[in-house]
Amino acid sequence: MKLLALETSAGPASCAVAEDGRLLAVSSVNVPLTHSQTLLPMTEALLKNAALTMADIDLLAVSAGPGSFTGIRIGVAAVKGLAFPKDLPCVGVSTLAAIAQNFQGIPGPAVVCAVMDARCQQVYTARFTLNADGSLQRESPDQAMTIEDLAAALSCIKKPVFLVGDGANLCYTALQERELDLRLAPEHLRFQNAAGVAAEAFRLAEEGKTIPPAELRPVYLRLPQAERERLAAQKHHK
Amino acid sequence: MKLLALETSAGPASCAVAEDGRLLAVSSVNVPLTHSQTLLPMTEALLKNAALTMADIDLLAVSAGPGSFTGIRIGVAAVKGLAFPKDLPCVGVSTLAAIAQNFQGIPGPAVVCAVMDARCQQVYTARFTLNADGSLQRESPDQAMTIEDLAAALSCIKKPVFLVGDGANLCYTALQERELDLRLAPEHLRFQNAAGVAAEAFRLAEEGKTIPPAELRPVYLRLPQAERERLAAQKHHK
Repeated sequence: MKLLALETSAGPASCAVAEDGRLLAVSSVNVPLTHSQTLLPMTEALLKNAALTMADIDLLAVSAGPGSFTGIRIGVAAVKGLAFPKDLPCVGVSTLAAIAQNFQGIPGPAVVCAVMDARCQQVYTARFTLNADGSLQRESPDQAMTIEDLAAALSCIKKPVFLVGDGANLCYTALQERELDLRLAPEHLRFQNAAGVAAEAFRLAEEGKTIPPAELRPVYLRLPQAERERLAAQKHHK
Repeated sequence: MKLLALETSAGPASCAVAEDGRLLAVSSVNVPLTHSQTLLPMTEALLKNAALTMADIDLLAVSAGPGSFTGIRIGVAAVKGLAFPKDLPCVGVSTLAAIAQNFQGIPGPAVVCAVMDARCQQVYTARFTLNADGSLQRESPDQAMTIEDLAAALSCIKKPVFLVGDGANLCYTALQERELDLRLAPEHLRFQNAAGVAAEAFRLAEEGKTIPPAELRPVYLRLPQAERERLAAQKHHK
């Protein structure tokens, strides 16, 4: 079974094709172009490099959030569009779980804390135990919280905590004075990428968690800024 | 300074562009096509995805061996060709050192043993200490040896030994009955890729180890099979 995975939840964009858990091809860019410019030409080149076409793809996956509102919408919309003609099954993957997959197979014990910058001293975050055999186990749901609340949540952990995600550096810098055993993940394992989305999607597909493209939805965790401002203004005027 | 790195030392092919140590774009394929078919179209697409052209590239890097004789020749010849018009500086990187870079930044203490299948129960191998701070330190030169000699070399190591490279599975299977603390690197960190070539090339460039394209040479470690057979036949006929 061949899977095409797209990742556009933050600055970098990437796409990957995998077959039965094995990566066949992966491409990533981290340049100041918008995902709407890079994603589909990159995906077309990826399939061509691997001598494949969309006709070979059986399953589509996307990091459905949390992340940049625009980035997530571009990724989800692209996957819906690619899945629509043949009504291919889709998997929406937690961006945070996909990032944590970068540590899959590295022997613990440790904790992998995925953090994405949600602006205003807030992060999107989820924690995973990294076991001695390299397996990952989710310990908390995807949540939006302040960096201060994250510090409190990490304070009772007695293992090294690897920070991954585009908020890793922010949290590492903000919390390095605290008595926490925080480690900044090495750069090549720190960021979201389509290989992690593919790995997490295969896990979910095995659990039967595929959905038709029409049911694929972005997962924002917070209201967009415009909505927040509208609600705040309404409250103010009451 | 922008660097273009190519990796074709075994089955997969990959290319990467990095700037001052940071990856801008990377593409890999692992499909049954020859590198002569995939490498240059993939490199062209990589540069296009990143909105770059060859005119933006200041430095070229390639995994110069050990590895597949044909694969190494394709990579080295491609880099020479790309470097020639502007006589761009080049870096030839040890394939084994480039693979070990996959573990750079993961806290040790451990040993990273890079192994590539050299056929006939032989491997190309080099060992690196992975320190507590995640830095790598070479412990042995690139060598061709039998799996049996590798087992002897590993027998006195008192740390976990991570096997990386396309010979990792071969050695893990052959040696798992021995009293060695061998760990098979997780699949996404096991194989050679152009990101590792770029990381190792930046390190070498900082040490001033760039050369003109004319001086770039494949590093085979062993004579090609045809040469070995010729010499054996000569010896036999003496």
